[in-house]
Amino acid sequence: MWFNSTMDSTLLPFFKPRGVVLFGASTSEEKLGYGVARNLTMSGYPGPIHFVGQKPGELFGRPIFTDVKDVPDPVDLAILIVPPKATPETIETCGNRGIHSAVIVSAGFREVGEEGARLEFECLERARKFGIRLLGPNCIGTIDTHLPMDTTFLQPPMPAQGGIGFISHSGAFCAAIVDWSRGQGFGFSRIVSLGNQADVNETDMLPLLASDPHTRVIVLYMEGVSEGRRFVQVAAEIANEKPILALKVGRFEAGQKAAASHTGALAASDTAFEAAFVKSGVLRAETAEQMFDWARALEYCPLPKGRRMAILTNAGGPGVIAADAIKTYDMELALLSEHSKQALASYLPAAASVINPVDMLASASPEIYGACLKVLLEEERVDGVMVILPPPPMFKAEDVAQNLVGVIRQFNKPVVVALMGSPLIETAVKVLTLAKVPAYPFPERAASALAALNRRADFIAQKSMTMDQKVPAIGSSDARTAEEMVETFGIQTARAKLAQDAHACGKIASELGFPVVLKIASRDISHKSDVGGVLTGIQDEGSARNGYTIIIDRVTSARPEAKIEGVYIQKQVDGGQEVIAGAVHDPQFGPLIMFGSGGVEVEGLKDVAFALAPLTRIEAKKMIEQTWAGRKLKGFRNIPPADEESVIDVLVNLSHLMIQKPDVGEIEINPLKVLTRGAVALDVRIRHIQTG
Amino acid sequence: MWFNSTMDSTLLPFFKPRGVVLFGASTSEEKLGYGVARNLTMSGYPGPIHFVGQKPGELFGRPIFTDVKDVPDPVDLAILIVPPKATPETIETCGNRGIHSAVIVSAGFREVGEEGARLEFECLERARKFGIRLLGPNCIGTIDTHLPMDTTFLQPPMPAQGGIGFISHSGAFCAAIVDWSRGQGFGFSRIVSLGNQADVNETDMLPLLASDPHTRVIVLYMEGVSEGRRFVQVAAEIANEKPILALKVGRFEAGQKAAASHTGALAASDTAFEAAFVKSGVLRAETAEQMFDWARALEYCPLPKGRRMAILTNAGGPGVIAADAIKTYDMELALLSEHSKQALASYLPAAASVINPVDMLASASPEIYGACLKVLLEEERVDGVMVILPPPPMFKAEDVAQNLVGVIRQFNKPVVVALMGSPLIETAVKVLTLAKVPAYPFPERAASALAALNRRADFIAQKSMTMDQKVPAIGSSDARTAEEMVETFGIQTARAKLAQDAHACGKIASELGFPVVLKIASRDISHKSDVGGVLTGIQDEGSARNGYTIIIDRVTSARPEAKIEGVYIQKQVDGGQEVIAGAVHDPQFGPLIMFGSGGVEVEGLKDVAFALAPLTRIEAKKMIEQTWAGRKLKGFRNIPPADEESVIDVLVNLSHLMIQKPDVGEIEINPLKVLTRGAVALDVRIRHIQTG
Repeated sequence: MWFNSTMDSTLLPFFKPRGVVLFGASTSEEKLGYGVARNLTMSGYPGPIHFVGQKPGELFGRPIFTDVKDVPDPVDLAILIVPPKATPETIETCGNRGIHSAVIVSAGFREVGEEGARLEFECLERARKFGIRLLGPNCIGTIDTHLPMDTTFLQPPMPAQGGIGFISHSGAFCAAIVDWSRGQGFGFSRIVSLGNQADVNETDMLPLLASDPHTRVIVLYMEGVSEGRRFVQVAAEIANEKPILALKVGRFEAGQKAAASHTGALAASDTAFEAAFVKSGVLRAETAEQMFDWARALEYCPLPKGRRMAILTNAGGPGVIAADAIKTYDMELALLSEHSKQALASYLPAAASVINPVDMLASASPEIYGACLKVLLEEERVDGVMVILPPPPMFKAEDVAQNLVGVIRQFNKPVVVALMGSPLIETAVKVLTLAKVPAYPFPERAASALAALNRRADFIAQKSMTMDQKVPAIGSSDARTAEEMVETFGIQTARAKLAQDAHACGKIASELGFPVVLKIASRDISHKSDVGGVLTGIQDEGSARNGYTIIIDRVTSARPEAKIEGVYIQKQVDGGQEVIAGAVHDPQFGPLIMFGSGGVEVEGLKDVAFALAPLTRIEAKKMIEQTWAGRKLKGFRNIPPADEESVIDVLVNLSHLMIQKPDVGEIEINPLKVLTRGAVALDVRIRHIQTG
Repeated sequence: MWFNSTMDSTLLPFFKPRGVVLFGASTSEEKLGYGVARNLTMSGYPGPIHFVGQKPGELFGRPIFTDVKDVPDPVDLAILIVPPKATPETIETCGNRGIHSAVIVSAGFREVGEEGARLEFECLERARKFGIRLLGPNCIGTIDTHLPMDTTFLQPPMPAQGGIGFISHSGAFCAAIVDWSRGQGFGFSRIVSLGNQADVNETDMLPLLASDPHTRVIVLYMEGVSEGRRFVQVAAEIANEKPILALKVGRFEAGQKAAASHTGALAASDTAFEAAFVKSGVLRAETAEQMFDWARALEYCPLPKGRRMAILTNAGGPGVIAADAIKTYDMELALLSEHSKQALASYLPAAASVINPVDMLASASPEIYGACLKVLLEEERVDGVMVILPPPPMFKAEDVAQNLVGVIRQFNKPVVVALMGSPLIETAVKVLTLAKVPAYPFPERAASALAALNRRADFIAQKSMTMDQKVPAIGSSDARTAEEMVETFGIQTARAKLAQDAHACGKIASELGFPVVLKIASRDISHKSDVGGVLTGIQDEGSARNGYTIIIDRVTSARPEAKIEGVYIQKQVDGGQEVIAGAVHDPQFGPLIMFGSGGVEVEGLKDVAFALAPLTRIEAKKMIEQTWAGRKLKGFRNIPPADEESVIDVLVNLSHLMIQKPDVGEIEINPLKVLTRGAVALDVRIRHIQTG
């Protein structure tokens, strides 16, 4: 899987160089240039490693050259630890030497102010001249545990080998996570710290991790995004094959400045990120710990076929905690078959519980743990299992763990373990980690991991879902008002349309959908009802045609002097439900579509959902279902149902409008009246983007 | 602090026995009777320890008696590890020997079925005969790390000494937490496992932990409650002095069966627990890990004076994570004074950030960490600090930790540390734990702990808040209808009141509050308006008196034959906002009061809040503020404000009604119309509890 459409081959040397040269190699142990030399050497990188320094000498059995010209071939990756001011020139040197990839580790660039930004720009200019790709500056480089290669200065040893690929906007976060992972017993495939992203950004790096066969899950620590639309496109393509998790910080950054509508005011920058993650299938974690909890489950476990989970425990209390957590995370407790209950009962004392959560009691031996787990995994009604293992009073936790592993391997269902304790379970943690069974210190975290597996399974299932996608409306460009604009995209408004004969009246009414209201069109008549100039409740084309004649006849006989232009036809909007629909152009991710409760609720309750354009009908339906306004459309108590399909149409059409009309900055339909059949925009406002 | 009002002195021997005897002592290492003997001996319990077993012998240098009569004085606590069938008789033996406290460790009682329940009841009967207090059965006993004493069979060593008192409904959860705490480096003061609670329950044990000077925080693992009202009363008294945290499981248990109202349907059993915790000041944790994260902060830290937090970091990424988490947990980033910024700048390189989060950059030394922390703690605008410490690239984390501790001790403000990593920070964890500085592996957990300190501070502050408490209404008992019932408790209904002269009309109108509507009272007249029998918008007592005369005059002249009873006066309820108010009798905690959005929103949005009766006005106001219905009362956009005070009156009065009328099972006012002045119950339903 090489993700050919998104992979940029100029980036390959960052993880698979044919030879590496370190600029700024140093024999002083406290220098970063020593640390990187040490890590390159100790990592076991199989290709040639070369050092360039200010003074000639020897380091880790290799010569230190003073000029890169003396470095023998092959060499295609440079690590730069030279003072910021010397960096542009060093890049030039690399270019002259034919090196087309460079990691700038040094800090002192854009992050320190204007002078640094100027230097960073100069580095980029020099790099472009030679077609050199830059990672950094102000980053800690790359690690590949399988190649292996370590271009960082982090304290050895390298992180353990594993299947998690990790892209980080923060070097310090990388360093902390690498150290933390050692205590947790999990490993990484590839790690990259992006630093200031003068050139290479998170989206560039995604395919490099995705195409690595050792990488089974990708985790992202993001402080922002460089190319929002491309990120969504690339991440979506990769997420079809490998799970991507993200921790996005900066949640509380202000959104659109001086928004002209509710849509704009509610669409904070984080809302757009949320929508981008949903669109691309990236699972967003709430906390750093949670992201890695999920990553391990996704790396180790098969996906569940459903949400029916079983809990296997040797104690009631933790079983209840687990049951609560399963429900909190929107899964359910599997109802076991009689067959399974009998099988469990055959292994367990009479006082045990064979109803899920299965409580084997404190006497459960390693063999009983294994036998009962087997029963649960064999059960067709069970999609996954959480095993709870506090220190067993009469056995060793590691013996239980060993037996669990033997059983788990025989099945293709996810099993997570809540391994509670510390010294008494230490060996058991190692047994499970080695066998790639995810273990967590508490049932709540184990449940959260199971839920992540479910979210991933939902995403995979959704890919194969189809829903009739109507041909998108194509707007004409002669629209003058906001109403006309949305109408050209197939969204009905309450704007009155003029018919000048009975046939046209029937046709227009038919297009609007029934019922319609007919009104005499005449500037000379102010009280239209008084002269019989209004007909309501017209239910079909024939009645509309007849209605035209009736109205004209009545009015001409009542007011023969009046000048009559024809008959206005309007969608009749009695009853129905009022909602809000809108769109705003996000500077990073493009058009963002909104749906929610209209009236004061839009602001008071923030009962709104957002999604990125272009919307599929499935995405539009999901937005609707996320909100109370949307759930009400199906009817609720005394509220009659309204036409949800027509709201889907409006949202999909709004998304096409936003894409085809890039000069529309904000649009808001408030209210959108949703009727038994059809939906009508009663008020439409558009803000155009100021250009020039 | 002995909590004299709630402390039961018969329970004292469970934690301060004058002498202990173990029934079922065994020399076989795999027996629980060996484990308890070992722990009692090894714990260093300073009083006499005696063993009683089936066969005479010696164990840990002490004789095994075969008859408790031979055990010398003093002895006032028995630990029973004998077969269930022998337990009642052993209790009898204890009684005869003058022992009045017993821990029944053995399982095989109520939890295994009917026969076990019978045995448990027999134990209780024998115990009552002698005035013996029972802990258990099916529990793991008690630990006091300071006395010290350990009556459990858990794997030694005893947990570390600390300030956390721990009451648990689950023995296995106790065992897991004790082992886990060793890895986390925190300790306990007293631990008690309650088992089946044949006699002693969680409420009994609370004062025993609260009165222990070593206990600074109490944590509860609860699967239910035995005496809800007493729990609230005792916990509230203790929470005034020491923080109580609870993890309550079984969140998803069904609530009221076949509820007759929205109030009943929405009041699940967990809702009542939530209300009970709020009422008593118990902080409810979402997960086990969180409960102990909070407990350490509450044990170690002074309370913050406000929510303005500073972040001190040596790296940007974790600083942003921390800033997000601070805001997520409803705190704010302190705005530093110019003075502080200059002081920070004097220690830091130019590229560092002296705006909160203060980013010292990776070069920050232990001294710089200390100096900057001092600046932040000296800053008047800072109420607490989160220090972030990933493995520093050029220093040892433990040296940083040591410097932090030196500074923290000089101030009376809370400081929590996000100590990120594993092997590289291991020693630093120990340094901080020893100094009682709470450390967490991630900023999000550190922020959650700071938030817990804030919640505790809010509770303490709230205690000193006062709000005019009106004299509670006392209902009369001659009410026949639901409307009359609530009226006798000062709640206005739309029920029409009859005046039979002008003076009475003015007086009644005055009582109802203006405006009022006057209507002729006559069964002979169906279209009252047609004969001038209705007057609306009456604004004062004089107009009401006049109105009486006007109506009577008009009607008698229009319909001289009609029999006139007088004039009905009704509160005029144009405009206003519709909300719902109700109450339901919770079987465990008594009356639970509800407030929220009326109409379909009550079920669709679940926009409701619950609180336990009796309500103070402050509590009623808080309920209102929790809901969108309540926030709207203050006015929102085009919705004019309504009389929030009158809603507070209604809720407080409902709570008095529920307490004074214990036969009322459910009551619901839906809608309650809240006007510019006053609130009127438009529909009132009451369900009485079936008795007899």
